[in-house]
Amino acid sequence: MAPQNGNAQGDLEMKRRDAPIVSVGKIPTHTLRVFPLGGLEEIGKNCTAFEYGPDILVVDLGIMFPDEEAPGVDYIAPDTRFLQEHKDKIKGLVITHAHLDHVGAIPYLIEKLGNPPIYATELTAALIVARLEEFNLDKKITVNVFDSHDVLKVGVFEIQPFRVNHNIPDSVGLGIKTPIGMIVHTGDFKFDFTPLAQPPTEFHKIASLGANGVLLLLSDSTNSERPGYCISERDIAKNILETFKNAGGRVVISTFASLISRIQQIIDAAHATGRKVAISGRSLEQNLEICIRLGYINLDAAEFIKLKDTDRYAHNKVVIVCTGSQGQENSALGRMAREEHAHVKIGKGDTVILSSSPIPGNERSVQNLMNRLFSLGATVIYDKLLGVHVSGHGYEQDLKLMQALVRPKYFLPVHGERHMLERHSQIAQHLGMSKHNIFVIANGQVIEFKKKITRITGRRTALAPGHKGLNNDPLAQYDDIEASILDQRLDSQSIMIDGLGVGDIGNVVLRDRQVMAQDGMVVIITTVDKRTYQIIGQPDIISRGFVYMKSSEKLIYGIKKRVTDLANGYDRRKMENWGQLRNVIRDEIGEYLFRKTERRPMVLPVVIQV
Amino acid sequence: MAPQNGNAQGDLEMKRRDAPIVSVGKIPTHTLRVFPLGGLEEIGKNCTAFEYGPDILVVDLGIMFPDEEAPGVDYIAPDTRFLQEHKDKIKGLVITHAHLDHVGAIPYLIEKLGNPPIYATELTAALIVARLEEFNLDKKITVNVFDSHDVLKVGVFEIQPFRVNHNIPDSVGLGIKTPIGMIVHTGDFKFDFTPLAQPPTEFHKIASLGANGVLLLLSDSTNSERPGYCISERDIAKNILETFKNAGGRVVISTFASLISRIQQIIDAAHATGRKVAISGRSLEQNLEICIRLGYINLDAAEFIKLKDTDRYAHNKVVIVCTGSQGQENSALGRMAREEHAHVKIGKGDTVILSSSPIPGNERSVQNLMNRLFSLGATVIYDKLLGVHVSGHGYEQDLKLMQALVRPKYFLPVHGERHMLERHSQIAQHLGMSKHNIFVIANGQVIEFKKKITRITGRRTALAPGHKGLNNDPLAQYDDIEASILDQRLDSQSIMIDGLGVGDIGNVVLRDRQVMAQDGMVVIITTVDKRTYQIIGQPDIISRGFVYMKSSEKLIYGIKKRVTDLANGYDRRKMENWGQLRNVIRDEIGEYLFRKTERRPMVLPVVIQV
Repeated sequence: MAPQNGNAQGDLEMKRRDAPIVSVGKIPTHTLRVFPLGGLEEIGKNCTAFEYGPDILVVDLGIMFPDEEAPGVDYIAPDTRFLQEHKDKIKGLVITHAHLDHVGAIPYLIEKLGNPPIYATELTAALIVARLEEFNLDKKITVNVFDSHDVLKVGVFEIQPFRVNHNIPDSVGLGIKTPIGMIVHTGDFKFDFTPLAQPPTEFHKIASLGANGVLLLLSDSTNSERPGYCISERDIAKNILETFKNAGGRVVISTFASLISRIQQIIDAAHATGRKVAISGRSLEQNLEICIRLGYINLDAAEFIKLKDTDRYAHNKVVIVCTGSQGQENSALGRMAREEHAHVKIGKGDTVILSSSPIPGNERSVQNLMNRLFSLGATVIYDKLLGVHVSGHGYEQDLKLMQALVRPKYFLPVHGERHMLERHSQIAQHLGMSKHNIFVIANGQVIEFKKKITRITGRRTALAPGHKGLNNDPLAQYDDIEASILDQRLDSQSIMIDGLGVGDIGNVVLRDRQVMAQDGMVVIITTVDKRTYQIIGQPDIISRGFVYMKSSEKLIYGIKKRVTDLANGYDRRKMENWGQLRNVIRDEIGEYLFRKTERRPMVLPVVIQV
Repeated sequence: MAPQNGNAQGDLEMKRRDAPIVSVGKIPTHTLRVFPLGGLEEIGKNCTAFEYGPDILVVDLGIMFPDEEAPGVDYIAPDTRFLQEHKDKIKGLVITHAHLDHVGAIPYLIEKLGNPPIYATELTAALIVARLEEFNLDKKITVNVFDSHDVLKVGVFEIQPFRVNHNIPDSVGLGIKTPIGMIVHTGDFKFDFTPLAQPPTEFHKIASLGANGVLLLLSDSTNSERPGYCISERDIAKNILETFKNAGGRVVISTFASLISRIQQIIDAAHATGRKVAISGRSLEQNLEICIRLGYINLDAAEFIKLKDTDRYAHNKVVIVCTGSQGQENSALGRMAREEHAHVKIGKGDTVILSSSPIPGNERSVQNLMNRLFSLGATVIYDKLLGVHVSGHGYEQDLKLMQALVRPKYFLPVHGERHMLERHSQIAQHLGMSKHNIFVIANGQVIEFKKKITRITGRRTALAPGHKGLNNDPLAQYDDIEASILDQRLDSQSIMIDGLGVGDIGNVVLRDRQVMAQDGMVVIITTVDKRTYQIIGQPDIISRGFVYMKSSEKLIYGIKKRVTDLANGYDRRKMENWGQLRNVIRDEIGEYLFRKTERRPMVLPVVIQV
């Protein structure tokens, strides 16, 4: 399609000319493209880009934690290769809140994106800066702090943020005014009419966006399968307080370092029961320090004590807040459960509260953690037993309320596994939205909104300014917009972060790790005289993760004998082609080992010529 | 404590003399010991032994599926070393039902236990025999079939089985009459007043056991944390039928091969909607064949079709039943989702039903499976969306009913993670049982019941026959029994089954697998002239699972250079001690690689002397 001229735009703000733009294809003016790069069909690595003319706006840049299919990998980042190719167009990165699945990839990717300016609310910005400092990037990146009352200009986009409730303070959703219509991105949200340590959701702003007509809504799908309303943080606070009151001894309470609201509840309950608070866990200490400094956590410094001083107080006068509620081995609680913590020995009389629910995949580790804690004699309180945790994401009724307030023309469910997105789509349909206006798509797919140019008797028409006032339907202004999913898809791989490497772990490396994790490996070293082609001595066998070598003498003897026979029986004319001999050894020994053990270790034959 | 004479036992049946018995310690007569060997603080590998005098009775012998801490391991079996040492005392193995966590370890361990006779109900026996055949053990083992009306004599123990409901037919609980009192073992159970394809629970028998006084109850704790009653299989059947009716195209429904009741529901729904049934999955086919032969599955053979023939029928006339609901890669559904199934291509119009809930640890794989199915265009129905699965284990109210019927003196919650056992204990306490009469213990702990011998003026007294009829409290007969947990514990390790090996995988092998899974490994081969101690050529580097070797030339060069320097700079007087050089290489290169990559691959230095 040829570029259109940008003259007849009615009330749509549009300052730039229609120079041809290199993008997925050429983008004609009046065309908005939405690129979800992460967070679809998964929980984690949220990242969405919006492109109009020469400008790209990026919202969030998070990481995901890997599953068992990516052993050893630290994090997974979104595939931003498309953005990297067009980094000159990126006008800004706006962050909705400071959870790692929204900010975690910044230190790894921001330079590749050409160091665009970052926009975030105060606490979010402070937590981002702290991470940038760790990576020595804080001098290179501008982090702009905004308030929910501010309006941000990021290229052609005008951002009107609104406060939402989530389990970290200073979370916002975004109204994103584009030249052809308003987009609403909820960020992570729930509706909490009695939030703790954070102001309530700015309902009026969301409603006002809806009243003026929203072209597209992107809304959090995490809990689309949970019926009813998300309960209030205040109810959780009540249960935590109750547990503190009932505990005769120490309370050890574990949660995510980023659940700032929960930590406030804990401090409040400690205050109410006259308990001193000690902290264990580096990320927790860091976050707390920032929150206290900025006033996001309310506390009396006198109520804090050092971890090593807890034993100086009566047990029923102490609360220990720590990380490790997901069963992480090396976390503070993990070490306590294994009796390896330097300062805290858990035992009879202690009450341990796990104030989180297991992230899918962590169930086993959490069970193991609980088993250990019980075995030490502790009373263990967990969410299934008593509400000591609530999700930060709205349930079905919350999602319906968001739909009802925003009343969008189009809907893109985000932030969820595929089945959560599908369920969210069903919820919207249940409220009357047509299935054809809902995009249940995958990362890398592109939605395009194009303003139709209707020609009548050779004259180009457009909506007159103020048109929407003539009509009770605020969506009528979008009648001339066509939405479609492009056939072309962007690259959408999982970019693996392992140690210092970003993206240098690929499928081959992972597959090797998986094979070795399954049945271990066997290295067979054969030394050959390069003049005579004779084997020198016996092959050397090194094995790890396969069988106990010391009790497998027969097996090792069998390998050596077979390798020697193979090498000696091998056609000497081919001897210069060691690769072929290696393949023969790999296949034959692999087969032999499977027959003897029904295991398939990785067999690595090495031929050394001397 | 010295052995007591066995003369004054009143109505207690006791035929054997009090010869000293080698056990954990010496067991005096009048002493019953209960050994939970598996199933406590875990879901899986259920196994409990009961010892009285020279007789041991074993109930169940199951396997567990390993978690991520045991990569590559196929199954985990209970630690039966204690039983193996006393195999001559084992009089029989009684099985409650045919699920793998109750029968799976039989082929691996039965010979080590001296091939004791097995007792099982008809279907259970048939499924056990099928597995024994696979292992060529069917000729060596006697499998005795019993009916719930039978009374079994197994050594000194008299077994009075009672039918319970579970999601496999022919499940029983056991009344175990011992010389000093009655034990009730529920097996896996739920109360279903409208069961499908199985007779109802024999409430009257359980009640009658309770009326006569039960010393100890062992009861299934799996769902102790779920409030209310377990819903009936009939409700699930209704939802499955509804889904079949609504599906416009093919239905693919996936469940466990052992959920025989569910398979009956599927066949019924297919019949009601005029759909032909095809089966995919070897274990499913095997189980079905047995169930059909024995009449546990009701069906008209004409309604079955071959998998490869499904395309000959209209899509809305076909149901495909398959395994793989847990997201297993190589299962039938796994292959369909990856578009690798030979006969079934899933696409738009197909409805896929996952009729199971994820086993803890499988959540991630199930999500991945669902994402793939959605991406193929299928409608995916799963339990959270619509009740298409219900657990086979009773909820809180079911557990209370069992307690109320059995009214035991002592209670041992079994079959559950520690928190489930604790919760089950709380439920019993809520019903009035004293905490001191409840044993929340771990595998390998031993409960001992001893009949007190009260001497009055030198005369030994005992309960007169018929005594219990004189008293309204059926538990009064146990007033002279002392229960305690022994200080001594049995070995209780996880016995790992990997390929053909049982127990030959130990912690070292597993740790190696874990290390290699995390960051891969690097083998460094240095060839040295054994006369001159000179390095010959350059070191050879082999690496897997660490970094892409081809794009890491600098790193490899760095390794080679450092190894050469280390070897050449190494004190020649120590050269004969190659082990020391290897250690130096391992440490230095490990350190170097961590500095460069922040990864810690396993470094394996090899010095070859020629």
